[in-house]
Amino acid sequence: MSHISPFEVMEIQTLARQLEAEGKDVIHMEIGEPDFRTPEPIVEAAIQALRDEPMLYTSALGMKPLREAIAGFYETKYGVKVDASRIVVTAGSSAALLLTFAVLLNAGDEVLMADPGYPCNRHFVRAVDGVPVGIPVGPDTDYQLAAKHISPHWRERTAAALVASPANPTGTIVSPAELANIRNEVTRLGGTLVVDEIYQGLTYGVEPSTALTLGDDVFVINSFSKYFQMTGWRLGWLVVPPAYVRTIETLAQNLFISASAPAQFAALAAFKPETIAILEARRAELHARRDFLIPALRTLGFGVPVVPQGAFYIYTDSSALGPSSYDLSRRIMNEANVAVTPGNDFGSNEPQKHIRIAYTRPIARLEEAMARIDRLGLRA
Amino acid sequence: MSHISPFEVMEIQTLARQLEAEGKDVIHMEIGEPDFRTPEPIVEAAIQALRDEPMLYTSALGMKPLREAIAGFYETKYGVKVDASRIVVTAGSSAALLLTFAVLLNAGDEVLMADPGYPCNRHFVRAVDGVPVGIPVGPDTDYQLAAKHISPHWRERTAAALVASPANPTGTIVSPAELANIRNEVTRLGGTLVVDEIYQGLTYGVEPSTALTLGDDVFVINSFSKYFQMTGWRLGWLVVPPAYVRTIETLAQNLFISASAPAQFAALAAFKPETIAILEARRAELHARRDFLIPALRTLGFGVPVVPQGAFYIYTDSSALGPSSYDLSRRIMNEANVAVTPGNDFGSNEPQKHIRIAYTRPIARLEEAMARIDRLGLRA
Repeated sequence: MSHISPFEVMEIQTLARQLEAEGKDVIHMEIGEPDFRTPEPIVEAAIQALRDEPMLYTSALGMKPLREAIAGFYETKYGVKVDASRIVVTAGSSAALLLTFAVLLNAGDEVLMADPGYPCNRHFVRAVDGVPVGIPVGPDTDYQLAAKHISPHWRERTAAALVASPANPTGTIVSPAELANIRNEVTRLGGTLVVDEIYQGLTYGVEPSTALTLGDDVFVINSFSKYFQMTGWRLGWLVVPPAYVRTIETLAQNLFISASAPAQFAALAAFKPETIAILEARRAELHARRDFLIPALRTLGFGVPVVPQGAFYIYTDSSALGPSSYDLSRRIMNEANVAVTPGNDFGSNEPQKHIRIAYTRPIARLEEAMARIDRLGLRA
Repeated sequence: MSHISPFEVMEIQTLARQLEAEGKDVIHMEIGEPDFRTPEPIVEAAIQALRDEPMLYTSALGMKPLREAIAGFYETKYGVKVDASRIVVTAGSSAALLLTFAVLLNAGDEVLMADPGYPCNRHFVRAVDGVPVGIPVGPDTDYQLAAKHISPHWRERTAAALVASPANPTGTIVSPAELANIRNEVTRLGGTLVVDEIYQGLTYGVEPSTALTLGDDVFVINSFSKYFQMTGWRLGWLVVPPAYVRTIETLAQNLFISASAPAQFAALAAFKPETIAILEARRAELHARRDFLIPALRTLGFGVPVVPQGAFYIYTDSSALGPSSYDLSRRIMNEANVAVTPGNDFGSNEPQKHIRIAYTRPIARLEEAMARIDRLGLRA
């Protein structure tokens, strides 16, 4: 496993901590973690459960009431019926991705995915001795896989295609119509479509959607981390085609035993109307941050060729400001004390031209960050 | 990963739930989970943290105060200095085992381990395409690996040996002297010793010990689940040789991001004197249960050739009661409504002759279980 490279974002955080230890005020726009606390009803549900319940192992598939609550949420919010028996509660989407690739891949099997993309996706595939195949994508397809990419890259050993929507690091979305086309192509070629929906619910100006409407042959990965703002709790879920449930259960028993019980009790409150009200207000706040940041970045010379409609990232084209996004992000860190993530983390498709900027801080801080970067006179 | 077989114990639990749904009173002696609630000071620490702290991702290696508290516990209780930088907090010992084998093994590398043994150990090795090599062990070595086993089983591709002490399913211990011999053999042959100490602290009549006294080249796996009674929280740790810390950190970042934050805050209270007082009282209770159960089982015809000195299991020889421990355990379940685990889960070394019995229920329930089994007249 020594081929696994460190998260560049973690290195950036180490640099940030060094500057902070020297008394510097660092503005953090590098991390994929919202600045909101876990909503109060979720925290209170955990506290109540800690007082009332012994915190024992749960079923490997997760607590039944939580699996049913997730199924209920799909029906209420997305109008799609998903049998609770197909829903597997996991230790974050990390565990969901590992389980998915472990059951879908034999050693040497290939998985198509967009480049740029979330770095761990490649690593999960490699962890089970699969081969991640990055397909370079750009503004013409909103930095996403499209149906037209599938067949030209499909080979004897291709077993699956992975789509993330909304995506990290680009914040872009695949339209339901295009996703249906992708799924049809993958199915026609005998493969399986895996859809990462961990930023589901965090969309701006478009309604959230789910690949589950396409049929029960798609693996769907989700998380309580982002929309539900439970990052540190480490809880996610996976929706599995019916034929895979038993294998996934056995594998989850052996690799994880079960997901965190306190987190599962907490998540029972995630779908309550009072929680959703809090989360929707925060979504509006993220929307406002995005709308502030895009023109501000463009003014500074960062290219934003596609307006991201989801998550909380902008994948900027920094090539007008310098030939190396790595050097540029270090200069921005050291001279402006603003932490941003260079493209290196996200693949090999022109990483030196891109910087990911996360809007996980309040607008006042984003304004301050823009002012500091402006003073560097990068475009001069 | 389809070679992973289901836990037999999970099947037993499914049967138990069916009987319970019919209104039957099942006595659970199949599960590796104590019947004690998480100690109050730990629960209260979690509640306090939930009120005070945002529950964000922690460092991939774990919260620094917790890593330091673990180091402090090693020094206070075991008199061994372990640098906190070598301690990695994980999502249960499951994650610790996966990380360990992921960094130690290349595809095809072999790991020596005792048969019978904890089934997941084999599966973690296979999950990273290693090869688990079970060495049949019996009463002559307390069902444990001994130094004399190492060299005869060592081959070109052997990379490591795994010892669990106290062990599941046998409850037996490797003496510090024998463990030192094992480590010397493994080191002489160019391999790495991995010691699973997840039942550390749960010993009866012998002082607990740690392999960390042997030197800093041993991987040591531990858990908050068993002695600290935090099963459902999913928190463990790993002590890593210094040269491996950076690789483990990168791998943990990619595969897990971090362990549960609420569980880490809770565990900060695990080493407090008031918590230890509760845990030591419970250890005395487990000791009393073991002392009740061993003669009671012998009276019923179960063989207990080695008195287990740790964990909460007795690995009985059931061969005098029937040729198949699998059939026997099902008969005990269906006719006496007592759940026990046949040897099938634990390897291929005469599983049909063995049944694991857990003393994770109060003595009154153990008495009732023995009376019910007695009425079956198995020995007739």
